[in-house]
Amino acid sequence: MQPRDLSDHVAYQAGRGIEEVARELGRDPAEFIKLASNENPHGPSPAAVEAIRETASSVNAYPKAAHADLTAAIAAEWGVDDSQVWLANGGDGALDYLHRAMLEPDDAVLVPEPGFAYYGMSARFHHGAVETYALERAEDFEQTADSVLEAYDGERVVYLTSPHNPTGTTIDLAEIEHVAEETAEETLVVVDEAYGEFAAVDSALALTQGRDGFDARDDVAILRTFSKAYGLAGVRLGYAVVPEAWGDAYARVNTPFAASELACRAGLAAFDDDEHVERTVETTLESREYMRETIDAHVWPSEGNFVLVAVGDAAAVAEEMQQRGVIVRDCTSFGLPGCIRITCGTDAETERAVETLNAVLADLGLPEDGAAEDPADPNAPEVSDS
Amino acid sequence: MQPRDLSDHVAYQAGRGIEEVARELGRDPAEFIKLASNENPHGPSPAAVEAIRETASSVNAYPKAAHADLTAAIAAEWGVDDSQVWLANGGDGALDYLHRAMLEPDDAVLVPEPGFAYYGMSARFHHGAVETYALERAEDFEQTADSVLEAYDGERVVYLTSPHNPTGTTIDLAEIEHVAEETAEETLVVVDEAYGEFAAVDSALALTQGRDGFDARDDVAILRTFSKAYGLAGVRLGYAVVPEAWGDAYARVNTPFAASELACRAGLAAFDDDEHVERTVETTLESREYMRETIDAHVWPSEGNFVLVAVGDAAAVAEEMQQRGVIVRDCTSFGLPGCIRITCGTDAETERAVETLNAVLADLGLPEDGAAEDPADPNAPEVSDS
Repeated sequence: MQPRDLSDHVAYQAGRGIEEVARELGRDPAEFIKLASNENPHGPSPAAVEAIRETASSVNAYPKAAHADLTAAIAAEWGVDDSQVWLANGGDGALDYLHRAMLEPDDAVLVPEPGFAYYGMSARFHHGAVETYALERAEDFEQTADSVLEAYDGERVVYLTSPHNPTGTTIDLAEIEHVAEETAEETLVVVDEAYGEFAAVDSALALTQGRDGFDARDDVAILRTFSKAYGLAGVRLGYAVVPEAWGDAYARVNTPFAASELACRAGLAAFDDDEHVERTVETTLESREYMRETIDAHVWPSEGNFVLVAVGDAAAVAEEMQQRGVIVRDCTSFGLPGCIRITCGTDAETERAVETLNAVLADLGLPEDGAAEDPADPNAPEVSDS
Repeated sequence: MQPRDLSDHVAYQAGRGIEEVARELGRDPAEFIKLASNENPHGPSPAAVEAIRETASSVNAYPKAAHADLTAAIAAEWGVDDSQVWLANGGDGALDYLHRAMLEPDDAVLVPEPGFAYYGMSARFHHGAVETYALERAEDFEQTADSVLEAYDGERVVYLTSPHNPTGTTIDLAEIEHVAEETAEETLVVVDEAYGEFAAVDSALALTQGRDGFDARDDVAILRTFSKAYGLAGVRLGYAVVPEAWGDAYARVNTPFAASELACRAGLAAFDDDEHVERTVETTLESREYMRETIDAHVWPSEGNFVLVAVGDAAAVAEEMQQRGVIVRDCTSFGLPGCIRITCGTDAETERAVETLNAVLADLGLPEDGAAEDPADPNAPEVSDS
């Protein structure tokens, strides 16, 4: 017997780590640096490492029924009720929960293109349909309410990403408010703020809470993750902050124990470690600026912990950089075969990445007029790596 | 705005840990032992603890794209192809993947009652319907093909649990073969073997592989977990072994990175630590036997790492035992308000549990004729704790 027809469920190609790349190439892992998955160059918070080590000997016990301490810390930080914080196994897990809460079969979600693949993958897993709206490259991938509303056709969930992956652009709160205002009452606007700590714009929670001159809304949720600024991608921890009116819905849609005890203890320690986050953000801003100034190709302005670079032939450039020991993200899988994405690293990593990229560009030839063609490739495999 | 109608998604009540119970009662955690969640009394494998501690400092990196080493180790142990091993964030995550692979909206699953709540919860999350078949208490909760087939009405997935939670009974391979034989070709039989390491019966993989006189089948999958014999409930790691013909379906239904790097490294270390598993199984068999012999109430024979005990008023007995420092599972939430479930502990824990239970039974009064009434309670909250 066979599974049901899964032909609309595209197999994704996840980004590979140094160990996997080195093994494939038959080389020493020490030769490589990886700036491909927007990971934290300073590692996890030392407090989180300590929490993991302390918890290790008691992992025979199930996770707590409710991670009340972590939930309360997050809720206090955002000024929301504990019931609005939906802890999950990574941001991806939180997306699953939102879809369980929102989607009847064939209800649609509206997602950005290019954009993070798991919005659509998760919606399809929950029998949702997926519609897309375009970010205009000609406008520097600008994100406007109009581009979303032009494509909007009553979808049940609309995804905005700010800062956006892989372009690095943000969307103003007034634009988000406009989207929420103009979409149907039963449409939820989800703002993915996985890279929020690196951005100059405020969290969209200002709309939920009616701060900063906005009227309070009940149709906006945000997504946050511990994988980026907090440096905990390997433990899997993320959360959504949902409208207050949703009450006890979390208990009805979450998978018990899905957020592991290790993840939640590490998360709480990291959440309290302001120094580590501040250091990470500082390094990121310096790296971002340095890459903008020194890369011999067009670099889009970015509010994330990465930059998008127009290199002409992304597959060839990424492959050649990898041969020279620098793993970056070929954005073909995002439908941008002319672009690579480089994560902000430590000073040494960033310098090596720029030096290597400039050398590769010189050897392979620069893209004409500094920008590459990027006809979206509809057959590109989906990637989930963020 | 509000989520969709979630009224058929029952909020579950998860089992609570010592810390949570002690805090609620305002007492010292050291006063308590917990034999309520079928956790490993010897803790995690020391090798797994070491693996977690070693990995802690690099959790800023995403999990590997494929945990090839762990997958290969499991596949080799079972004699299956690597593609048949579906790693997941706990056994619950594997259930989600099976439902993504199997269920179109309104397709039904057939689950045992009493039984593990997440079979049905996960199916509903994926817009499936849930039908139940009864285990006959009069027959010592015997599991037969007939009881399943009597209720079977073309459901897409049929769940068997062997050993069964919370009754401890097993189902013979010949009975499983009979179920697979008599159900439709497009029906998948899933055998949950979360407690398989503690049982005298063979894994249902013998049917998939055509061993021991059975013809090879392509309609049986098994579920396994690292939460029980391997002592890793707190890291979340489980897997399904699916039919070989399913090929690359895993790539189409899994959530990337859902199995964390910490979980997979701990899992590989634990999987190789035969000594820890053997010691755990030995302790379990001794504890099981001791409880059968010394508890002053009816104890059903069990092949799991727990026993089910008829105590009359489970809520009252569990509450009183908790007051006396021994946390056990009140099975009201399984629809068995006359029964408690006690996990096999260390010698000292088992002795204390029996002593406490017998004293409580003496104080509260024994159930008449040693067995309690257990009208199934249709309004019982669902629990997922296993």
